[in-house]
Amino acid sequence: MDAELLTVGDELLIGQVVNTNAAWMGERLSLLGVDVVRSVTLGDDVEAILRELRIAFQMAELVIVTGGLGPTHDDVTKVAVAEHYGVELRFDATVFDAVQARFERRGLPMPEINRTQAMVPDGFEVLPNPRGTAPGLWRADEAEGRTQIMVVLPGVPHEMEGLMTEEVLPRLRQHKNLRVIGHRTLLTTGIGESSLEERLGDLGPLLGDDARLASLPGFSGVRLRLTVYGAGRTAVLDRLDELEARLRARAGDYIYGQDEDTLEDVVGRLLREAGLTVAVAESCTGGHVLNRLTNVSGSSRYVLGGAVAYCNDVKQRVLQVDADALERHGAVSLEVAVQMARGVRARFRSDVGLSTTGIMGPTGGTDEKPVGTVWFGYVDADREEAVCLRFGTDRQRNKERASTAALDLLRRRVLDGMKTDG
Amino acid sequence: MDAELLTVGDELLIGQVVNTNAAWMGERLSLLGVDVVRSVTLGDDVEAILRELRIAFQMAELVIVTGGLGPTHDDVTKVAVAEHYGVELRFDATVFDAVQARFERRGLPMPEINRTQAMVPDGFEVLPNPRGTAPGLWRADEAEGRTQIMVVLPGVPHEMEGLMTEEVLPRLRQHKNLRVIGHRTLLTTGIGESSLEERLGDLGPLLGDDARLASLPGFSGVRLRLTVYGAGRTAVLDRLDELEARLRARAGDYIYGQDEDTLEDVVGRLLREAGLTVAVAESCTGGHVLNRLTNVSGSSRYVLGGAVAYCNDVKQRVLQVDADALERHGAVSLEVAVQMARGVRARFRSDVGLSTTGIMGPTGGTDEKPVGTVWFGYVDADREEAVCLRFGTDRQRNKERASTAALDLLRRRVLDGMKTDG
Repeated sequence: MDAELLTVGDELLIGQVVNTNAAWMGERLSLLGVDVVRSVTLGDDVEAILRELRIAFQMAELVIVTGGLGPTHDDVTKVAVAEHYGVELRFDATVFDAVQARFERRGLPMPEINRTQAMVPDGFEVLPNPRGTAPGLWRADEAEGRTQIMVVLPGVPHEMEGLMTEEVLPRLRQHKNLRVIGHRTLLTTGIGESSLEERLGDLGPLLGDDARLASLPGFSGVRLRLTVYGAGRTAVLDRLDELEARLRARAGDYIYGQDEDTLEDVVGRLLREAGLTVAVAESCTGGHVLNRLTNVSGSSRYVLGGAVAYCNDVKQRVLQVDADALERHGAVSLEVAVQMARGVRARFRSDVGLSTTGIMGPTGGTDEKPVGTVWFGYVDADREEAVCLRFGTDRQRNKERASTAALDLLRRRVLDGMKTDG
Repeated sequence: MDAELLTVGDELLIGQVVNTNAAWMGERLSLLGVDVVRSVTLGDDVEAILRELRIAFQMAELVIVTGGLGPTHDDVTKVAVAEHYGVELRFDATVFDAVQARFERRGLPMPEINRTQAMVPDGFEVLPNPRGTAPGLWRADEAEGRTQIMVVLPGVPHEMEGLMTEEVLPRLRQHKNLRVIGHRTLLTTGIGESSLEERLGDLGPLLGDDARLASLPGFSGVRLRLTVYGAGRTAVLDRLDELEARLRARAGDYIYGQDEDTLEDVVGRLLREAGLTVAVAESCTGGHVLNRLTNVSGSSRYVLGGAVAYCNDVKQRVLQVDADALERHGAVSLEVAVQMARGVRARFRSDVGLSTTGIMGPTGGTDEKPVGTVWFGYVDADREEAVCLRFGTDRQRNKERASTAALDLLRRRVLDGMKTDG
């Protein structure tokens, strides 16, 4: 099945917004076995959209249009789609009720202008959008022996992604022309792309003709994406299991999870399994570690909280770091990292205390402690430890990478503890 | 002058690479007064590129093609361009020498395959590329009274950007048809898209024929993007100033900043200006507010730190919230929000104490306090306050929106204080 993506919005053409929607959809469709052959971006212009829709179905059986579905006057996608099919926009009471209920839940009156969101082109199936006010639309026709599927989605990324995942991809999966393709992504952290590649060795014979491995580096680690092509579901899954086992044997505990896992999910599961609570003292990461830990639903069961101590005074008063250590070794030091972890553990009465202290940049480094230097502390009933890592000079990236390293330290120690106990 | 961008590469279609080139070119061209009316991405496929080139000049006077210029077999852009113009590829000795010199400088032998990079379509001007092996190409024709300019550039971002900046944009700037276009984006928060539009009222007469306004909603608020077309730079800037003043008069202090500002930047500037320090007590936002505040370089001057108090026990011990308030009103309440703000202010000895306590979901709500209910506390030397807002059911979005609301509360109170003091 060939697909065209049509993303609508002046903000995309003038480069105010980078078109991540096209990339996201391209990836998901490819993984499903759909070939994206063309991706077009147009402004909020009925004539331009109409002209492109006429071209699109000459090249593709599936056309997905995103954007231009909001309530304001510059949102014209539905008008163009209705005109393309020669149908009217009809008032859909179900959509209207959903939009109204959304406003009611927030205790707000619904502005009159939102009524237009309940207008949908006749002959389209409405795909409910629990994340926003603009619904998705689906229509499949058989014309001249060819399938023509038109999908219309809002341009807000998480709304589009939700509708794709919950409504569009499952419908496409039922389509008869799709091969069976299986994917599995193994998530690693704490090892660079080339070191990981060396560790994995020559994978050619292992992968053969039916499998591929892509290594995708990111700030929080390298993802290993396996793709397997096959005739049937079971054979593909078996092959994926086999390949995963071989990769795990080689990459060991650098692999922290797979597919949609996040490091904080994995850490959360381990803490619950081990029956441990944690508190975090953050200096340089400024709340990033706690923010990630508490992104997990149910995290209140094992995250007691923590303190962000951005100045020495607070490190002393709130975290009981002693003035002598701060003076002799500086705030970015082994001693202070351990004392912070100890202090937050005592103050919050948690099983584990974790800490970060470092220089995030872009300024503030010295010869001895350049920008990017971070000390991590870990303290539990049996163990006290500090680790130093060195990152780059970009503040935001450093916070991201340092919080990943802190979570990975926590993950490894909880795992160790479980091995010892077992 | 209308332009079409044609970006070539399978990696773009399958979403392995996000199309940042299109955004970069779109922005630069817009700033120059060129209207990008269409942006198309195709795979490495001669037929598809040829078909699109035929369409492109119907819509645009300028077509910029990027990508598919490398030495490997799947790089077919030059073949398609030559065929479109009905010309041959000729061997260009200057390009060849440059490629060879590049390899020599690195002490490497030039692979035979790189010889193809010296083949250029006849009738094109070669644009030298000091950053890589593939040169840019330029051709301008007058056909049927219309200008047709074709530019071909490599897809490697910094090579494309270098050639655009040094070769293409200066040539385009000389073109007689260029209007001046100016953009300005006003950033709002705390008001929905449709309510904002109602507040702004009918802008038709104000905008006239020379200006446009787009409203772009996001989690942290709605951005208002003004575009003005005019004959000269000064006139355009004056008109932008005039429109900005009118929008500010109507949208008032829902506008927190403009263009590249973030809310945390703005809050940071205000706190520094007012000479105030802040500490934050976070329950439901779990560190998100502190993480954002500390994303700003230099934030250690006004952020003393804060506490993440994820359980009642910690709220009592670390933040001195009294057990009675927790029992009588629950953790998500006016009383607890104020006491948390008071407690963190006292413990961290800051000028301002800010707090959040709520139910982020997806579970944990009650009839009285459904998922998405958040109380915010604000305490300074002269004022104690609590505000309740209700968000949706998505945990991550709720944290994002609640942290935005907390920062906006801080922004408004610091602004109020400055007005009073002044």
